[in-house]
Amino acid sequence: MDSKKQREGMTRRDFLKMTAVAGVGLAIGGAGVSAIERAVRPASTSAAESNPSEDTIPMYGEHQAGIITPQQTYMYLASFRITTEDKAAVIRLFRDWTRFSDLSTSGGTMKTGDNPLLPPSDTGETLDLPASKLTVTFGFGPTFFSVEGKNRFGISAKSPRYLKDIPRMPKDNLDHLQSGGDVIVQVCAEDQQVAFHAVRNFIRLSTGYATLKWIQEGFISGSGGKTPRNLFGFKDGTANNLHQTPAGYNDVVWAGEDEPAWMKGGTYLAYRKVRMLLEVWDRSSLTDQEDTFGRHKESGAAYGTKDEFDTVDPAQMPVSAHVRLAKQSKQLIHRRGYSYTDGVDLRTGNVNAGLLFISYQKNPDEQLIPMLKLMQSQDKLNEYTSHVASALFACPGGLREGQYIGQSILES
Amino acid sequence: MDSKKQREGMTRRDFLKMTAVAGVGLAIGGAGVSAIERAVRPASTSAAESNPSEDTIPMYGEHQAGIITPQQTYMYLASFRITTEDKAAVIRLFRDWTRFSDLSTSGGTMKTGDNPLLPPSDTGETLDLPASKLTVTFGFGPTFFSVEGKNRFGISAKSPRYLKDIPRMPKDNLDHLQSGGDVIVQVCAEDQQVAFHAVRNFIRLSTGYATLKWIQEGFISGSGGKTPRNLFGFKDGTANNLHQTPAGYNDVVWAGEDEPAWMKGGTYLAYRKVRMLLEVWDRSSLTDQEDTFGRHKESGAAYGTKDEFDTVDPAQMPVSAHVRLAKQSKQLIHRRGYSYTDGVDLRTGNVNAGLLFISYQKNPDEQLIPMLKLMQSQDKLNEYTSHVASALFACPGGLREGQYIGQSILES
Repeated sequence: MDSKKQREGMTRRDFLKMTAVAGVGLAIGGAGVSAIERAVRPASTSAAESNPSEDTIPMYGEHQAGIITPQQTYMYLASFRITTEDKAAVIRLFRDWTRFSDLSTSGGTMKTGDNPLLPPSDTGETLDLPASKLTVTFGFGPTFFSVEGKNRFGISAKSPRYLKDIPRMPKDNLDHLQSGGDVIVQVCAEDQQVAFHAVRNFIRLSTGYATLKWIQEGFISGSGGKTPRNLFGFKDGTANNLHQTPAGYNDVVWAGEDEPAWMKGGTYLAYRKVRMLLEVWDRSSLTDQEDTFGRHKESGAAYGTKDEFDTVDPAQMPVSAHVRLAKQSKQLIHRRGYSYTDGVDLRTGNVNAGLLFISYQKNPDEQLIPMLKLMQSQDKLNEYTSHVASALFACPGGLREGQYIGQSILES
Repeated sequence: MDSKKQREGMTRRDFLKMTAVAGVGLAIGGAGVSAIERAVRPASTSAAESNPSEDTIPMYGEHQAGIITPQQTYMYLASFRITTEDKAAVIRLFRDWTRFSDLSTSGGTMKTGDNPLLPPSDTGETLDLPASKLTVTFGFGPTFFSVEGKNRFGISAKSPRYLKDIPRMPKDNLDHLQSGGDVIVQVCAEDQQVAFHAVRNFIRLSTGYATLKWIQEGFISGSGGKTPRNLFGFKDGTANNLHQTPAGYNDVVWAGEDEPAWMKGGTYLAYRKVRMLLEVWDRSSLTDQEDTFGRHKESGAAYGTKDEFDTVDPAQMPVSAHVRLAKQSKQLIHRRGYSYTDGVDLRTGNVNAGLLFISYQKNPDEQLIPMLKLMQSQDKLNEYTSHVASALFACPGGLREGQYIGQSILES
């Protein structure tokens, strides 16, 4: 991070502190139930807007941030189970999460230490750090709307059209403890400490309302706008280039007119945790590796072409090549994946590592599931990968200031 | 990363490619045993030095890099078991590791694809990335020198004076699968993908010679030179300020005259993986938190002082305060810790997270072990922490170009 950004970040935080209204702080109930009453943030939107920073990504708008936002380097996914059946309690939680999101994405922190006999309102590890392009993206799983036919919060009629668990696929090896969930929070930032700070405070604010089901961290680095490479050393996400226009996003990402009103501007987040057998891959020849993708490793160019973004001709590739199969489905998805490393697999002595496949699409039934089926049955990549976790969530459209996450589902 | 650094990084890589001598590349034997024959790196040191970059930290010198180097944001520790009893094989491994370290810390990659029928010589995920201040630091555990009285490589007489496992401490809860090891590699960089690339290629190059025992990743962010905060939200490493001069490092870090010759310029790396019970901590009051450390949370100032670096007066703190106990031992250590997050603890539903305590010191018997004993029996911090892994390694002095890691132990 260069020193200019640094200074801007700090100036902004000082600004936030100065403009905080009297009485800010956090009230924490004796029973461990917490709520943000008011927090340290700009006194007005216009004041905030008058001090834009390269370090912040606006939270409000037609769409949630973190979907078509250029990929930040670090990500956490945190999946929650809602533990209350009380709709008013869920609303309190989502209001708290929204206030914290608003504050942290704009570079603020909750005020620490108004009353030393209470827990600090903020855990504090980002007190000296800028917003680092923090984004927070919420999605809702099938079990948020109904569980075993039970209409949990009176919203089962508003379940979006394509929201269901991804069906079992050939060669799936899923750990259900790392899959699914009622609510997902995708937190991305250029700094892992900033990202984890947000995750950890979402967990803290959920006490009494929800419990953490699973959490997963990831990283990925492109450089100077180049397509980042995955742990197989190949560029990952090249095909996003085909739809990165407003019209393209409407065709590929943003939900259609056939959805409940709250999905306007929304989309579906699909998640597959894909273990990569790095040791096997690293022992295979360059030809094998390139045949597996149908692209050249160093340049990213498809077989029979010269440059990464040249038009792909599937006929030039082996029939089981990953890119050929992707093209065969004739569908586009918006990819936003990360790599992960997860210690040693004690059974094999190999590193637990791989790809957190994340895609956003308007219609998973058409765009994603046929592609997954084709790939998981025929893809040469299967020799080197294993799908170990899975989830599908519906992400509502963006918020206007004053609204809270999920309001359009719970209150309309 | 700003675009200037970017351009320098790429220019340097292009330079490396252009100056590569003919016939570079990697030879991989049919049996999975690999070796770097020659790699893509500057043809001469003077050429390399004429193109310095802010992105690189020199590997050669009196001391290994990564010890008193300002902390980078990301770290991996990879602990290996040597599986061969053949000293010549160990030397081959260490030569390969040294060549790869030389290359990757100067921003180069092994050449990919000389022979498409062989595995690529580099795994490729950093082809587009700069060196990102990569450092690689090697250390040797007690079992490198002898196992159960058996002199493994004829070097048991050269075991350094204070090298032994850290003795069992009060309240220890150690997982031996995550502790110890024959050889440690500490890899640090400003970019996790760059750090993991190095770790993964060390693993790859070790095939046939060594296996991975454990691997651990960490992160930490200060900002503009400020002391970084740990996951308790407190500044961590403030006391390093007391010895950060050449004389101070001699007193605290660099091995003394009473050590084997190869320890000249070397030191001891102590590692404790300390689980932090974040949920318990986050429910405790600000007063409790500050009493636990004996410092104020936001400013980092010790009790009774105003600023972070003001002289500490232990009498101002509760008797069980962390900083008071640290001062009571009257010893200094050089701290270089990181935070970690590790998914969900399925027994409790809490996040597995904490501190990777790493300290460098010349005499662990005097500087570290009494401090640990005092703290693990009396420290108020014990209410919120649990030590789950441990290791001690001896790190040799730095290399001159042409030498390989461990040469002074194995060949002198």
